[in-house]
Amino acid sequence: MPLPRFNRSLPNDDLGLGIRVGPGRSVNKDGTFNVRRPGLPFFRGYELYHRLITMGGFRFLALLFLGFLAANALFAAIYLGIGMDQFVRTGGNGRLDRLMDAFFFSAQTLTTVGYGHISPNSHLVSAVAAFESLLGLLSFALATGLLYGRFSRPHAQMRFSQRAVVAPYRGGTGFMFRFVNRRSNQLIEVEATVVLSCLDPETGTRRFTTLALERNKINLFPTSWTVVHPIDEASPLAGLTAEDLERAQAEFIVLIKAFDDTFAQTIYQRTSYVAGEILWGARFQPMSTLAADGVMEMDLEKVDATEAVPIETGAKAP
Amino acid sequence: MPLPRFNRSLPNDDLGLGIRVGPGRSVNKDGTFNVRRPGLPFFRGYELYHRLITMGGFRFLALLFLGFLAANALFAAIYLGIGMDQFVRTGGNGRLDRLMDAFFFSAQTLTTVGYGHISPNSHLVSAVAAFESLLGLLSFALATGLLYGRFSRPHAQMRFSQRAVVAPYRGGTGFMFRFVNRRSNQLIEVEATVVLSCLDPETGTRRFTTLALERNKINLFPTSWTVVHPIDEASPLAGLTAEDLERAQAEFIVLIKAFDDTFAQTIYQRTSYVAGEILWGARFQPMSTLAADGVMEMDLEKVDATEAVPIETGAKAP
Amino acid sequence: MPLPRFNRSLPNDDLGLGIRVGPGRSVNKDGTFNVRRPGLPFFRGYELYHRLITMGGFRFLALLFLGFLAANALFAAIYLGIGMDQFVRTGGNGRLDRLMDAFFFSAQTLTTVGYGHISPNSHLVSAVAAFESLLGLLSFALATGLLYGRFSRPHAQMRFSQRAVVAPYRGGTGFMFRFVNRRSNQLIEVEATVVLSCLDPETGTRRFTTLALERNKINLFPTSWTVVHPIDEASPLAGLTAEDLERAQAEFIVLIKAFDDTFAQTIYQRTSYVAGEILWGARFQPMSTLAADGVMEMDLEKVDATEAVPIETGAKAP
Amino acid sequence: MPLPRFNRSLPNDDLGLGIRVGPGRSVNKDGTFNVRRPGLPFFRGYELYHRLITMGGFRFLALLFLGFLAANALFAAIYLGIGMDQFVRTGGNGRLDRLMDAFFFSAQTLTTVGYGHISPNSHLVSAVAAFESLLGLLSFALATGLLYGRFSRPHAQMRFSQRAVVAPYRGGTGFMFRFVNRRSNQLIEVEATVVLSCLDPETGTRRFTTLALERNKINLFPTSWTVVHPIDEASPLAGLTAEDLERAQAEFIVLIKAFDDTFAQTIYQRTSYVAGEILWGARFQPMSTLAADGVMEMDLEKVDATEAVPIETGAKAP
Repeated sequence: MPLPRFNRSLPNDDLGLGIRVGPGRSVNKDGTFNVRRPGLPFFRGYELYHRLITMGGFRFLALLFLGFLAANALFAAIYLGIGMDQFVRTGGNGRLDRLMDAFFFSAQTLTTVGYGHISPNSHLVSAVAAFESLLGLLSFALATGLLYGRFSRPHAQMRFSQRAVVAPYRGGTGFMFRFVNRRSNQLIEVEATVVLSCLDPETGTRRFTTLALERNKINLFPTSWTVVHPIDEASPLAGLTAEDLERAQAEFIVLIKAFDDTFAQTIYQRTSYVAGEILWGARFQPMSTLAADGVMEMDLEKVDATEAVPIETGAKAP
Repeated sequence: MPLPRFNRSLPNDDLGLGIRVGPGRSVNKDGTFNVRRPGLPFFRGYELYHRLITMGGFRFLALLFLGFLAANALFAAIYLGIGMDQFVRTGGNGRLDRLMDAFFFSAQTLTTVGYGHISPNSHLVSAVAAFESLLGLLSFALATGLLYGRFSRPHAQMRFSQRAVVAPYRGGTGFMFRFVNRRSNQLIEVEATVVLSCLDPETGTRRFTTLALERNKINLFPTSWTVVHPIDEASPLAGLTAEDLERAQAEFIVLIKAFDDTFAQTIYQRTSYVAGEILWGARFQPMSTLAADGVMEMDLEKVDATEAVPIETGAKAP
Repeated sequence: MPLPRFNRSLPNDDLGLGIRVGPGRSVNKDGTFNVRRPGLPFFRGYELYHRLITMGGFRFLALLFLGFLAANALFAAIYLGIGMDQFVRTGGNGRLDRLMDAFFFSAQTLTTVGYGHISPNSHLVSAVAAFESLLGLLSFALATGLLYGRFSRPHAQMRFSQRAVVAPYRGGTGFMFRFVNRRSNQLIEVEATVVLSCLDPETGTRRFTTLALERNKINLFPTSWTVVHPIDEASPLAGLTAEDLERAQAEFIVLIKAFDDTFAQTIYQRTSYVAGEILWGARFQPMSTLAADGVMEMDLEKVDATEAVPIETGAKAP
Repeated sequence: MPLPRFNRSLPNDDLGLGIRVGPGRSVNKDGTFNVRRPGLPFFRGYELYHRLITMGGFRFLALLFLGFLAANALFAAIYLGIGMDQFVRTGGNGRLDRLMDAFFFSAQTLTTVGYGHISPNSHLVSAVAAFESLLGLLSFALATGLLYGRFSRPHAQMRFSQRAVVAPYRGGTGFMFRFVNRRSNQLIEVEATVVLSCLDPETGTRRFTTLALERNKINLFPTSWTVVHPIDEASPLAGLTAEDLERAQAEFIVLIKAFDDTFAQTIYQRTSYVAGEILWGARFQPMSTLAADGVMEMDLEKVDATEAVPIETGAKAP
């Protein structure tokens, strides 16, 4: 049973992934690491910022709304404690009326809308209201900053082919996958790194090796890029079959780096292919056609389109 | 018929431009790619942001204004539904008066201007108004963030010479073009990459090769830079004539990268020259003169100025 | 007494740390430099910005609050000087009442809340109030910008092991320390540089040398990274004992550079280990375990966990 | 008369400085280029932004204030045109009163302070006011964004020694200058590039050559850095005297690049030394002393401090 050949001169804890990496995949399809770190503090400066920026949009808006309600409830309680007789107001004097007036006066102060139909009639209320409007300005600065920060945060939105293929390549074969940019922003200077991870049956731990690519950088990325690792004699995949990779629990970790031309920012994206996600003997179909007016047209939906093609594997012994 | 010599060891789908690149130019004069990607989603997070940032200025302002009208119309409808008798107001009670009061109360709430001459007189109206002012603050955060983001977005504004030239260069000839910075910001560490793309008559597809430059980086860029590809024996252009390039549908794709010293940001700009945009036997005229006070003065309008000069082409066989 | 071997071809003022570096450590545990620069100007543009962004959170909020009070006190004094009879107001006419009305009118103007229960009744007051609201908008722009800038400022929050170890490594020994990311943001392309600084007994000054590392860059950093300097024959530590390093007042300066995937920003962090912070004959215990569901789980608290292991030192003479 | 030896294989228009560079310095002491580019457009998008960000602080505030006055004057004229009888207001009805009420109603609308003591009493006025408050929110977004953008713009604030020196260095001599960071932010990965520019007497144009440095990058920059170009046999300065450099109108152009650790941004700074700003036979005095508590203390004022030292020049012929 041939096994992928690794650079055994490297220690086991390669790539910072830790020596205890088990049978599952290290990197999930969406690029997150398959690692749990329980007990990270939530309410601490930048960590809090990070969570607020990356949480789901609905959850974030709900949090904003609840925070607005809570702040108004708190100040309404303070105004009620001071007494609603210390306000100029036109509303009724029932319990609900006073509670509502306190709440909405707070809301009009926090948002600085300040209609004035309810207004302070004592120095104490004026002081609390002044403090509340200051607090409102600062809180809304954070809230709206976060809202815009979430909206404008740079994202790589590459769409990788669901499966990698082992296809004919220059007389031999090659390991290939491809991806497209799903956004209309212009990406340039796109770089790819592919790391193969296999289980070492002797030690029960994983070993990692970076695969040589036909090219690891392209200058322009208007359409799609098919990344190719030639399975030549120098490749750790030389002479291996699909079964060999399954047995070694092989995982191909993909790192893409690109420059977003529109916003002058570097963006990264990751994914991985495990042995079961490789099609042996298939090649990618073209995604682009030449339209009648001479402009190339690309069909993003075709990124997964493959067609069968005969290949020869397991022939070349390592 | 001699053809440009390419590195045939590279596959055809070089540069991510795809193998179906046809007879037209790959990169337009303004640097955009000559590719259509129909069906990109519009209303999805960052893509929406990207479109709002890059759309035309007039269209953006019109969108803001229409959004403001629409939001006020919506809330006016809600207030009318609740009933205008639940407001303290001084206006008339005709249908138009009530509609207008509802609309302008909404506008005064959304912008938090809140004069108070119209004000809520029921708990329900107060609640809707509180919600509207919250929504107003959040929406204006996005709108004004986008407005400022558009205004402050980094741009490279290099002006390339309309035509490239083939001029005498060190005993032989060189392919040259030049460009200037049309902004008063300071650009430094400017890098140039020039890729030649030609149609391979055998396969009908395009091949790409990066051209060697006399220098591909300059540290300072106060005036202009004439980028030179020496047509020596190692050049794929060696021995070719203007007709050869026309026949091969040659396109010189230019990528410029620079660091904007004023804003500490990397910026990129692209353009391309097709065979028909090359002047054979011409050189660029100087753009700068020494003023009376010893300061160099540069005339940006002269970037296209060339003068005829005899050259010898097609002589050296590849 | 063997001394670490340095590259004596380098001058003494290496690393910009200056030739007068004395017996203490050059870099503190928290990464700040052990240098005082008295007399830096405080109130000058960007320096002021820098101080406001980096000062403690409580101090910053106190400064904001005091600034708000001071601005209102100033404008209250102006309004009192003009005379409170030039206002429409409902409050009393005692000295305290007039003072409070002036103060709270100012607060309502500065925050643009503008209830209207106190309002200008003369052109002069209107003019001052218009100027104050303009000033309020500009000041709050700076204040809230700073508040959000502080909140969103990128931070590296790596947790280094309190001590470095000299542990067995490939038949010999290695100098090792490790660190984890305490934030949930994804760090990639992590680079490490380790510089050894020792006192030269001949000159009384310090000499610096960069240590070769087993690897100085990792692509992924989901868990922990143990940085290893192999103490082989080429190492300046070859044949040295703990006492030798103490005598030479050795300090290992650590620089970590990483790319924050979430915010597309490069971040840096520094620390240092002095001779007394090295455990000779100890190795780090694993930090991660494989949970029942196949996901790797990392215990951040274990970053300092070591266990004794026999090593042989001082054997190999340099 | 020996002349600096340049790499004559480079063409004359090196560094993008243009071939017409005359007798004066190319780079001013403050790092700006000694070039005029008349006729750059002012009111065009990013160029306008650039000018507003970099203009003097007083001028910027004056512009803001005048803009505020002008906008209010414009809207006051519109309100006066509609007629002040279409407002609810308590002020007098004299010409000045009406004008002032129109102006201050505009100011209260533009800043969204909206006291309400003047308020719209017709649909037309309400519509104009709604539009004005929308315009106010958008304009203030730009104005306050610019204000904060100016305040937070990254700046390198290195202080270079007024003069460079030619001092003894390793048995020979070296061209040296030094600089310190005048800000409390932490700079790391500081890189230096020094380019020598001399007038070529044959062609009357300038030639440029990059000087080899003892080191061109330091990892840490807590104190000062003395940049050294060793005047060895490979140096274009070998065997030259102060008079030679004066005659060749030599200019040493200095480019510093650093990473601002506090804000995760790359910053650049430039300066230059002309022949007359070089002290021959002088060395820099130490800037730092060890304080009583073992902390190194640096005196920024000493950056220019030099002392005479005998050197031998003009001896080694090129």
